[in-house]
Amino acid sequence: MSKKEIKKMTIAIDAMGGDYAPEEIVEGAILSLEEKDFSIILVGEEKKINSLLSKQIFDEKRISVLNATQKIEQDESPAIVVRRKKQSSINICSKLVRDKVADGMISAGPTGAVMTSAILNIGRIKGVKRPALAAFIPTVKNPILLIDIGANVDCKPIYLLQFAIMGKILYKNMLVDVQPKVGLLSIGEESTKGNHLVQESYELISKSIKDFVGNIEGHQILDGKANVIVCDGFTGNVVIKSIEGTVEMLFNQLKDTFLTNTISKMGAYLLKPSLKSLKKKFDYREYGGLQLIGIDGICIKAHGRSKSKAIKNSIRVATKVINSEMILNLKSEIKKYFKETR
Amino acid sequence: MSKKEIKKMTIAIDAMGGDYAPEEIVEGAILSLEEKDFSIILVGEEKKINSLLSKQIFDEKRISVLNATQKIEQDESPAIVVRRKKQSSINICSKLVRDKVADGMISAGPTGAVMTSAILNIGRIKGVKRPALAAFIPTVKNPILLIDIGANVDCKPIYLLQFAIMGKILYKNMLVDVQPKVGLLSIGEESTKGNHLVQESYELISKSIKDFVGNIEGHQILDGKANVIVCDGFTGNVVIKSIEGTVEMLFNQLKDTFLTNTISKMGAYLLKPSLKSLKKKFDYREYGGLQLIGIDGICIKAHGRSKSKAIKNSIRVATKVINSEMILNLKSEIKKYFKETR
Repeated sequence: MSKKEIKKMTIAIDAMGGDYAPEEIVEGAILSLEEKDFSIILVGEEKKINSLLSKQIFDEKRISVLNATQKIEQDESPAIVVRRKKQSSINICSKLVRDKVADGMISAGPTGAVMTSAILNIGRIKGVKRPALAAFIPTVKNPILLIDIGANVDCKPIYLLQFAIMGKILYKNMLVDVQPKVGLLSIGEESTKGNHLVQESYELISKSIKDFVGNIEGHQILDGKANVIVCDGFTGNVVIKSIEGTVEMLFNQLKDTFLTNTISKMGAYLLKPSLKSLKKKFDYREYGGLQLIGIDGICIKAHGRSKSKAIKNSIRVATKVINSEMILNLKSEIKKYFKETR
Repeated sequence: MSKKEIKKMTIAIDAMGGDYAPEEIVEGAILSLEEKDFSIILVGEEKKINSLLSKQIFDEKRISVLNATQKIEQDESPAIVVRRKKQSSINICSKLVRDKVADGMISAGPTGAVMTSAILNIGRIKGVKRPALAAFIPTVKNPILLIDIGANVDCKPIYLLQFAIMGKILYKNMLVDVQPKVGLLSIGEESTKGNHLVQESYELISKSIKDFVGNIEGHQILDGKANVIVCDGFTGNVVIKSIEGTVEMLFNQLKDTFLTNTISKMGAYLLKPSLKSLKKKFDYREYGGLQLIGIDGICIKAHGRSKSKAIKNSIRVATKVINSEMILNLKSEIKKYFKETR
């Protein structure tokens, strides 16, 4: 890719989504400018955003602001947001991607609204049955990609096969040095273990996917036997939140343990730097959010509690995925597989 | 209950099940004798067991040995174990419960074989659609009971309602001071969140169960909002193993962190007692195993990696549940509910 083409990259950011919008979103956008070769469109309440921008020093050519006249609430149904609030920041972002004004979008707004807006406005890649939400789970070694984690709560085996295909491509585009192994989340190692969906999916995936390593049990998720782990969106959502909840609970417990007495306080003081680096290893914010995959454009759903650092990471991930030409890869792989298997 | 009646309590223990059988099982049985008022039948290879017993000093009137001539393998299908190996230790244990020779059984053998043997030989409680496997998950406060964690991978809403009823009774019989709140594992707080099964189960459970607190998300499992959390056996199995895997991984990581340098080693030395007590809090072995609930007898599936301490705890739990008259409570509750709801 020539330097000129790279310079054209534009990312649409929903400045109104998430618990700390618009302040932390705007701050994150400015922080991200350290990395070169893209520009940003901040979508939201123009006046508020401009007032926040006016307090900062940055390359003004690289951030533009687009007004959104409607505001969405956390508890509104995704369908209502998308159909009735056409001028909300999420909808404007997804239309910017649809119209090729932006190469990708980022929103920390409600997951359902972001997904519905992106699917309806940007549309699916031809041949993709169901777009999926994919999450990178940090581990000590390579991260694990769990797909789906909530876009599709009731699935068919063919969906899970497509999640496997899409997850593999996403993984390869994010971690170019790894040839990702694919696993199927289940309750035992044998192909006959699991519910009906998983048993049928096992057969389909094992026939179609190279580097399929079979079933992965709950306690094996983080051990790296598989890089991409496929499941229905209900199980994936419960599992990823269970892992996050367990990590958070244990770190809180550690803190309490350290404050037990003077000796433990001294011990904790000595361990502080090592513990800090351990905690950072498991910080979901390092991975910039969830990727909605299977639509004809880049859409990243940042965590609702994203602060500026998480937004900056989301932008970094977006530029990486855009540069990797993942959408082109997805299109050709989906086309190839669904010529072969049907 | 009079002293005389309590003295009659007998527990059948599968001496051949688990990774450390029969040595650790026999050792655990002997250790458990510290607590009074029950006797034990060890079922398995008579010669081996007697030779292990002969090396120890204990009250010989309280442990008897029953020979089992068949041995089962880890990878044999549960159906084969139950139908073809009638003289295996698991089958003899469940028949001892069926014939009221024993008041309860404990096995660390393969989960599928233990379940199938207990369900077929002991039988279901009248009105119970599907017996379930329930697990206590340790937390800093009260443990959480997750039900089902693998007996039923494809469920109907009525099964989940029954899991809620049975889970509540089990919880009350184990932790008499707590009035257990029941939650439904899902992917959002609203009743409309979740897959088809969970959405339909929500309606059914909210109509029938007092102390139903609604949906519980993955990250809320350990926070104690609900004491009993209901789910299908596939999700439950994946979730409980994910939590166990995450705890194990983090403690391993902590250990590595502590060994980074001399200063961190010193810190770890000072923290050792506090960390040890923290680790103990999350040790599944403290809870003695899984309970198979809904059958007409007490059956505890100890962890396959159980050592003597875990077996001793399983025996303690078994005596507690037997004393609590849980089976009688279950029978009357199931009868009451299924008169009321149909």
